Amino acid sequence: MKQVCMRCGKEREGLELRCKRCGGPFKVEVEDLPFSRNLRDNFPYIKSWISLGEWNTPMIKNGDIYFKLDFLNPTGSYKDRGSVTLISYLAENGIKAISEDSSGNAGASIAAYGSAAGMLVKIFVPSTARGNKLKQIESYGAEVVKVEGSREEVAKAAENSPYYYASHVLQPQFRDGIRSLAYEIVRDLGWKTPDNVFLPTSAGTLLLGVFEGFRHMFNQGIIAKIPNIIAVQTEQVMPLCSKVKGIKYTPPEKVTSIADALVSTNPFLLPEMVEVIRKYGDCIVVNDEEILDSWKELARKGLLVEYSSATVYSAYKKSKPEGLSVLVLTGNGLKVL
Amino acid sequence: MKQVCMRCGKEREGLELRCKRCGGPFKVEVEDLPFSRNLRDNFPYIKSWISLGEWNTPMIKNGDIYFKLDFLNPTGSYKDRGSVTLISYLAENGIKAISEDSSGNAGASIAAYGSAAGMLVKIFVPSTARGNKLKQIESYGAEVVKVEGSREEVAKAAENSPYYYASHVLQPQFRDGIRSLAYEIVRDLGWKTPDNVFLPTSAGTLLLGVFEGFRHMFNQGIIAKIPNIIAVQTEQVMPLCSKVKGIKYTPPEKVTSIADALVSTNPFLLPEMVEVIRKYGDCIVVNDEEILDSWKELARKGLLVEYSSATVYSAYKKSKPEGLSVLVLTGNGLKVL
Repeated sequence: MKQVCMRCGKEREGLELRCKRCGGPFKVEVEDLPFSRNLRDNFPYIKSWISLGEWNTPMIKNGDIYFKLDFLNPTGSYKDRGSVTLISYLAENGIKAISEDSSGNAGASIAAYGSAAGMLVKIFVPSTARGNKLKQIESYGAEVVKVEGSREEVAKAAENSPYYYASHVLQPQFRDGIRSLAYEIVRDLGWKTPDNVFLPTSAGTLLLGVFEGFRHMFNQGIIAKIPNIIAVQTEQVMPLCSKVKGIKYTPPEKVTSIADALVSTNPFLLPEMVEVIRKYGDCIVVNDEEILDSWKELARKGLLVEYSSATVYSAYKKSKPEGLSVLVLTGNGLKVL
Repeated sequence: MKQVCMRCGKEREGLELRCKRCGGPFKVEVEDLPFSRNLRDNFPYIKSWISLGEWNTPMIKNGDIYFKLDFLNPTGSYKDRGSVTLISYLAENGIKAISEDSSGNAGASIAAYGSAAGMLVKIFVPSTARGNKLKQIESYGAEVVKVEGSREEVAKAAENSPYYYASHVLQPQFRDGIRSLAYEIVRDLGWKTPDNVFLPTSAGTLLLGVFEGFRHMFNQGIIAKIPNIIAVQTEQVMPLCSKVKGIKYTPPEKVTSIADALVSTNPFLLPEMVEVIRKYGDCIVVNDEEILDSWKELARKGLLVEYSSATVYSAYKKSKPEGLSVLVLTGNGLKVL
């Protein structure tokens, strides 16, 4: 399938990370792809899936709302939807060694799928990284490389490594895999469109991937409208809400929020996120106190998620929009015990 | 549905824990229940499911074998199959407060489903218990009560509590819920019977529940044979293997194996387990070195499980039985990081 620059439309030539003309990010072009209810068929560029049992996570109804339990993906986060397509694609393209920069869910997911594909995996993390997610990355057999300096310097080290940079932000097949989440939400509702979909938002892969899935279904006549996409950010890390709501905001020196998966203070995909939210949705800011309250409330419902995932429940309670709402719970709480 | 004593056949009168005649354990009688491919219909005694998205865990093929990823149940273990039926049943019977004794997966699962049902939950644990599983139990809002003394004294404290004792070992609806796992294994294989099913074995709820599911399908003509049920135990805790293989064995003062979910040195259900394994299967003993090797190997395949779950892979590699083998991976490795 064609891959094109999201900013200037130029086609991707091979495995380059950014558009050679304008430096923009690529996406997989799905405009003309007929939609299939056999969901894997919507990813015809994958011939052989390196599967760990991702997808088909439960969706449960709780009172008026639906929770999509994407934290029950194999490595404990929605990122597996991106990793399975990216790693399967790279394996088919002969890639044998990959690098990535993330001490969190993306790092764990890429490490698991990379190892499962028989690749060598190097995960670059800030020298200050610790905790269960780092142990998880190591468990999958990935080599962890600690880098002194800023988040940007860690990314640069991963990109400059001799291993191929399997960036979850830049690689279009990662973001593209997340279309599957939109398909499942609609399928789980009996092929009905929800009115509102709440998503924790950081680097933008979840937001843009899910949007692309809804857009695809809309263009193919499967759904009659694109739902309101409600991006949720924290007071500390709210570049998207700041832009679309015109709220003044200075990113902190160091992110200390309990929502530690939401750390992209200056996301590369911000222009694309702003465009989607301006046209199709809204952005809601929540603070640590609200997040902790929601986390406890969810756990008492039997749903143990990461703090970052609980943000969507805070946002729902603050906004209570009309119609059918789906809240995506993205990360497993076992990682933050 | 009728509940009968597994030892003398006497019917259960109400919510008593043991047979009033012989002290034996109860089971739910499924002899005459027609099998339904709509799997929830095989539990007609549940009218309203208190569901957290359990069941329908992935089954993936790896080389010659199939892994059933039951660690992707909502609380990270197969126990959710038992909790959903037990807690739904108890809620329908008006129970509002429950106790349980387990500092592990059963405690976490009962805590989650109990809280989700709006019950008060007290989980009794040994005073030495610690780690992620204990934190998980507390997260769901259960009260944790630490008890000095042996495992038996912890159980006695839970049973003597004023809350109703929702014992995962004694309550027949818990064990009965695990029938669902046998159904899914057969369904996931396209309604084919596997030749061998490997199960980590401790208290016997998994073994006896899965067996009952296969027996039900066999009696109803859905499958042509009952697969070999291969129980896997550790060198330290092998009461079943000791009995069926005639191996001399003295239980340790304190279990120190890394397979810390397999701790039942003297299981109440041992006579029933022996009967099943003598007739339909085998018992295989593995040691810590083998378990750790298998754990690492599984993680490098992208499957992060508990050490206790890795036992089945060690047992498979040692025995390499002919035919189609299914290995049940029971607990999420995020709990042991």
